[in-house]
Amino acid sequence: MQEATIDAGANHEDPTYELYYWPTLQGRGEYVRLVLEQAGARYRGVARLPESEGGGLKAVVGAFRGGGLGVGVLPLAPPILRHGELVLAQVANVCLYLARRHGLAPADEGRQLEANQLQLTIADLVAEAHDTHHPIAKSKYFEDQVEAARRCAEGFRGARLPKFLGYFEHVLTANTASGGRHLVGARLSYVDLSMFQTLEGLAYAFPRAYARVEPTIPRLTALRARVAALPRIAAYLASPRRIPFNEDGIFRRYPELDDPAPAS
Amino acid sequence: MQEATIDAGANHEDPTYELYYWPTLQGRGEYVRLVLEQAGARYRGVARLPESEGGGLKAVVGAFRGGGLGVGVLPLAPPILRHGELVLAQVANVCLYLARRHGLAPADEGRQLEANQLQLTIADLVAEAHDTHHPIAKSKYFEDQVEAARRCAEGFRGARLPKFLGYFEHVLTANTASGGRHLVGARLSYVDLSMFQTLEGLAYAFPRAYARVEPTIPRLTALRARVAALPRIAAYLASPRRIPFNEDGIFRRYPELDDPAPAS
Repeated sequence: MQEATIDAGANHEDPTYELYYWPTLQGRGEYVRLVLEQAGARYRGVARLPESEGGGLKAVVGAFRGGGLGVGVLPLAPPILRHGELVLAQVANVCLYLARRHGLAPADEGRQLEANQLQLTIADLVAEAHDTHHPIAKSKYFEDQVEAARRCAEGFRGARLPKFLGYFEHVLTANTASGGRHLVGARLSYVDLSMFQTLEGLAYAFPRAYARVEPTIPRLTALRARVAALPRIAAYLASPRRIPFNEDGIFRRYPELDDPAPAS
Repeated sequence: MQEATIDAGANHEDPTYELYYWPTLQGRGEYVRLVLEQAGARYRGVARLPESEGGGLKAVVGAFRGGGLGVGVLPLAPPILRHGELVLAQVANVCLYLARRHGLAPADEGRQLEANQLQLTIADLVAEAHDTHHPIAKSKYFEDQVEAARRCAEGFRGARLPKFLGYFEHVLTANTASGGRHLVGARLSYVDLSMFQTLEGLAYAFPRAYARVEPTIPRLTALRARVAALPRIAAYLASPRRIPFNEDGIFRRYPELDDPAPAS
């Protein structure tokens, strides 16, 4: 969890990226972190810096509720990326910006729009996965909405999870330009990284339901393994910078929201 | 509701836009329609064309569940825009594409990313408004989740609605380049059109809650009126092409989900 001082050899004339996000959970910030890591970009996790260097949780809150960073549109919520004079929020937006700059997005406009379309569809899946544990109100505790959560999660596992994953499996299969290895274009893109993170999260949160669906998604399963084995991603995952999944993030392991355990 | 044959004088060498969306509700398709209308673009609502011309509901379903239109990434769901060889889905993505082509997006990359950020934040608000009537499962009837919907809508009206609208009011106020008249940049953009539609929808679905919040958002209220008065938008709203709000779309007027009626 020491993301404050990453420097993997990017262009040093470029301002260092600053990521404003919560320091104790993967959450939506993880989608941005994975692009930064695969890009080998120099970035600082502001929450982990000492307050004397403009860091700490107060700096994260200040980047939105505190009135913003003084340039650009005030973000509603983190993750927020600052890069020189540019301040950006919304995961799909931040990832597109970074991916364009670091060769992780397709070069031509049409394919870039396709990548964005897939990324927004991943965001829809992520939002539905999140809402299984907070169907009534994001601001209320899980314990105060557990019965609604049970019903919501049942529909998610039964219908939405296979639907979304079957869809992405189809997209991989249809992308013959990559031999079914990438979601868009012929090369690795930020969309593949986000798909990896989403599969990891779903497998963490719903281990039984995920194991049930997994045999139907061989190409996604292979993609997940390939991304995990990318040297920079593998190094990141093995480092203390990768915060373990926990029950504060998007993907939470609440056994009552997973498929029932098989009768023993 | 005759969106099949609009031709407001766009460049006739350009292929006609084709919009694949449900013909009896505004839904997410309306965000795309408003950009097309304000652009004065030539477009065809495929669902309204006869089947003999490749139209009808079957054509809409065929554009995603039927395996797509044969080019580009298969979309998961409508609205879907076809423009020559390009097939695009996801509202924010389609709107960005159209807005860039028709002078309804900021020209420079940084401002365009800010516009996209705001558009995605509007999409978050729209999703939360939708989920008030379907908190448990999108595939189940409202009647089967009405108690959860009541609780969800209470939180939405009490906390989320004022939070989101207060945020966008602040964004307008802070955008001094436009004198507080536009959400991003100095000119009208697709984000203003989407904000208009969202305010219309919220005022339709939650008339009492909206009336309670409205005095706190004078700039948004003025923006809503200004967009409604744009000549092309005014003509569209007065035409049979504008489908009235109804209880099949995102914004549904269920009195039990609104603020309680004042004691008489």
